[in-house]
Amino acid sequence: MARALYPGSFDPVTNGHLDIIRRGARIFDEVIVSVVANPAKTPWFSLEERAEMLAEACADLSNVRVESFSGLLVKHAIKMEATVIIKGLRAVSDFESELMQAHTNRFLEGDIDTLFIPTDATYAFLSSSVVREVARLGGGVEGLVPPMVAERLRRKLAQT
Amino acid sequence: MARALYPGSFDPVTNGHLDIIRRGARIFDEVIVSVVANPAKTPWFSLEERAEMLAEACADLSNVRVESFSGLLVKHAIKMEATVIIKGLRAVSDFESELMQAHTNRFLEGDIDTLFIPTDATYAFLSSSVVREVARLGGGVEGLVPPMVAERLRRKLAQT
Amino acid sequence: MARALYPGSFDPVTNGHLDIIRRGARIFDEVIVSVVANPAKTPWFSLEERAEMLAEACADLSNVRVESFSGLLVKHAIKMEATVIIKGLRAVSDFESELMQAHTNRFLEGDIDTLFIPTDATYAFLSSSVVREVARLGGGVEGLVPPMVAERLRRKLAQT
Amino acid sequence: MARALYPGSFDPVTNGHLDIIRRGARIFDEVIVSVVANPAKTPWFSLEERAEMLAEACADLSNVRVESFSGLLVKHAIKMEATVIIKGLRAVSDFESELMQAHTNRFLEGDIDTLFIPTDATYAFLSSSVVREVARLGGGVEGLVPPMVAERLRRKLAQT
Amino acid sequence: MARALYPGSFDPVTNGHLDIIRRGARIFDEVIVSVVANPAKTPWFSLEERAEMLAEACADLSNVRVESFSGLLVKHAIKMEATVIIKGLRAVSDFESELMQAHTNRFLEGDIDTLFIPTDATYAFLSSSVVREVARLGGGVEGLVPPMVAERLRRKLAQT
Amino acid sequence: MARALYPGSFDPVTNGHLDIIRRGARIFDEVIVSVVANPAKTPWFSLEERAEMLAEACADLSNVRVESFSGLLVKHAIKMEATVIIKGLRAVSDFESELMQAHTNRFLEGDIDTLFIPTDATYAFLSSSVVREVARLGGGVEGLVPPMVAERLRRKLAQT
Repeated sequence: MARALYPGSFDPVTNGHLDIIRRGARIFDEVIVSVVANPAKTPWFSLEERAEMLAEACADLSNVRVESFSGLLVKHAIKMEATVIIKGLRAVSDFESELMQAHTNRFLEGDIDTLFIPTDATYAFLSSSVVREVARLGGGVEGLVPPMVAERLRRKLAQT
Repeated sequence: MARALYPGSFDPVTNGHLDIIRRGARIFDEVIVSVVANPAKTPWFSLEERAEMLAEACADLSNVRVESFSGLLVKHAIKMEATVIIKGLRAVSDFESELMQAHTNRFLEGDIDTLFIPTDATYAFLSSSVVREVARLGGGVEGLVPPMVAERLRRKLAQT
Repeated sequence: MARALYPGSFDPVTNGHLDIIRRGARIFDEVIVSVVANPAKTPWFSLEERAEMLAEACADLSNVRVESFSGLLVKHAIKMEATVIIKGLRAVSDFESELMQAHTNRFLEGDIDTLFIPTDATYAFLSSSVVREVARLGGGVEGLVPPMVAERLRRKLAQT
Repeated sequence: MARALYPGSFDPVTNGHLDIIRRGARIFDEVIVSVVANPAKTPWFSLEERAEMLAEACADLSNVRVESFSGLLVKHAIKMEATVIIKGLRAVSDFESELMQAHTNRFLEGDIDTLFIPTDATYAFLSSSVVREVARLGGGVEGLVPPMVAERLRRKLAQT
Repeated sequence: MARALYPGSFDPVTNGHLDIIRRGARIFDEVIVSVVANPAKTPWFSLEERAEMLAEACADLSNVRVESFSGLLVKHAIKMEATVIIKGLRAVSDFESELMQAHTNRFLEGDIDTLFIPTDATYAFLSSSVVREVARLGGGVEGLVPPMVAERLRRKLAQT
Repeated sequence: MARALYPGSFDPVTNGHLDIIRRGARIFDEVIVSVVANPAKTPWFSLEERAEMLAEACADLSNVRVESFSGLLVKHAIKMEATVIIKGLRAVSDFESELMQAHTNRFLEGDIDTLFIPTDATYAFLSSSVVREVARLGGGVEGLVPPMVAERLRRKLAQT
């Protein structure tokens, strides 16, 4: 059975992430969406909030579950008994840094491969930071994130 | 009438920026240079200083004026009745992040296009951060910025 | 009055090209679509066919006209009294070779600038050679080109 | 059951290709190596020779088999009942043209995804054309291809 | 006599850096490894520690010596009577920002050229920040850095 | 003594090539400009013509000489007792294919390194093929090549 891990900060989950999760769920027997507990930058949303939004957005996908992790990704993959890590590959993207991470992970754990799945062209420009930036400046994020994420962004901004 | 917006932090304006402004002023009926009031990183120069330097450097261009803005660029463009946003495109550049911004802006406001103008090859390596770095380390910035900007940089550094 | 030149082989015109032409027609007073008479590679369609398809596809755009040219692009631009050359910029693209051409053209004729317009993300993967390849291998090109171009491709392939 | 297709010209198969095949065979239930019958450029080796070398090189991998195809890759994938296409991703690579092909294939057949697997850093510079070039100029190709491929290259060159 | 300068933060020195130093020492009469005293980001290791690790790692190379500097790199190069600056060029790398620095340095001091040496493909993914990240997350860094650097990283992390 | 090899087709030599040769001659004890006898594409100028133009253009550089070669570059380098190969690195360039060649050459001959020298920003867009294209289309090539090369191009075109 092929189990894939899809890691990220998901701060918040975007429609681009969901595109990759749906494709992954079609290809692999199981997809574990793994939320980075402590990203390098302080996240807008807490680990709980980020995992909740993901779980809600993936509720209709029976072979997808959401976990969180801290520490080395490859150690987490082994613990989860995943054999591959999947990453989205945007037409406009940080391709080189992704490739560098994939090589680093392979160095650390030769048995786990990283597979890159091109995101839909529609999401070529989309990332969590784009969503946060647009929301922060008062723009509409409908079409970029699921409605309940848009709603959470509004509430988050109203608090500040 | 075609009015173009040229946004940036201009911290400080460089000869590369002025190259784009002059080309823009030749192509479009009017060019509004729009200074970002609150850039992501704390700027060296205040909004007033940055706008002043620009105004002085563009004083001979009758169809160029300097404005400032905060919030979403595309909303500012609509308010200014501009139909296009222009950006410089350096041979050595952050092409991908610029393209991502252009796509985000188009998503937010489909009627406004971003046009990229290649900067002169001479300025292929030039940016405000290069200028600040060179100045901070004690190098000469003549040829990179107008003389009055070089002078302001000297004074700014003498204060610190 | 700002007149823009949009050069290409258009072998055949794609929906990506038409996206750029429509954006150009909105920005500039006039757009001249200039078909390269003798491209480096032998084209599938004759100069007449390529120009006809363009003219038909742009029939509803009153400020767009189709011309052909041979020789240096910048000399043609001067003859046509155009002040700018416009090019599409795809998320996935030959960005560097386009930039090199823009610099070469500027060297040859300093008064004419090249402006790059990002194509819609939907067309990020689209080019005339993709269309020809898909058609040659028996795939459907609907959605990639206007219906009458799809029809012409079918007839062209039936002949061979 | 997840069946993956690994398409290419394999003119000839290199150790970089075999690295991808082995990783693919570990991840997916079955890998079909699909040799392009009529590549754009005239190949050095006939279709039979290219398929033979692949079959020999993959003889120890029980879930890998070699097929050939002409026409559209995605139609072949459907006929073979494969759900994904896998491609190698080199550190130094034609990333953009690969991504363009992946998007074109998705346009033609939305149900089939392309997954990119980074090749080992050791093979970052390796391609069939590098192998042919080195062999043609009289260099040793040991370490770049399996021994029997090196032997076939020698014989092929002795004939010319 | 050709003396080359190899600048960097070396926080800490990696096997990729040492690959470049060894190649440089073979090409040039003398190589001065120049440690940036005050890098933009606060380093993990003090200037003394970084220089010590370098000196120990290069102890067997008689024509290599370690210096530190602050301020403009090109001024330091002139003071050291170096005629070239050498930089590693990774297959997966920040090529563009390196090229921008090289052009800036040439602008400041036309007599000093920057030469890029490709690092070994094995180190295509390696950087000091990768090493720090792996160490911080509890992964093994053997093979990425000399043993004594791995030991120092362990001790550094035990302190925090 | 450090002897560098600068290989190329030089069809014809450009001011960008001469920029690299002059920098190389300043850095290394001796520079051998090595003209590829049989490039992949049929050259405009014969081997003799290409070598003659180079010799004339480098006549004032006492430590530069012109040779030709066929076969593997690294074998030629060894025969010439060169220890490094130098290549120009343009801001807008075929960086990836150059890096791939450098890695291939290192694989074939581990003792010979390839060093990349950034060309002057002024020549960021310049290549022999740009020069031939401009000349073929009737444009002026002054400033791109030495006067005697411009003259030869004119005569070559008059013959056809």
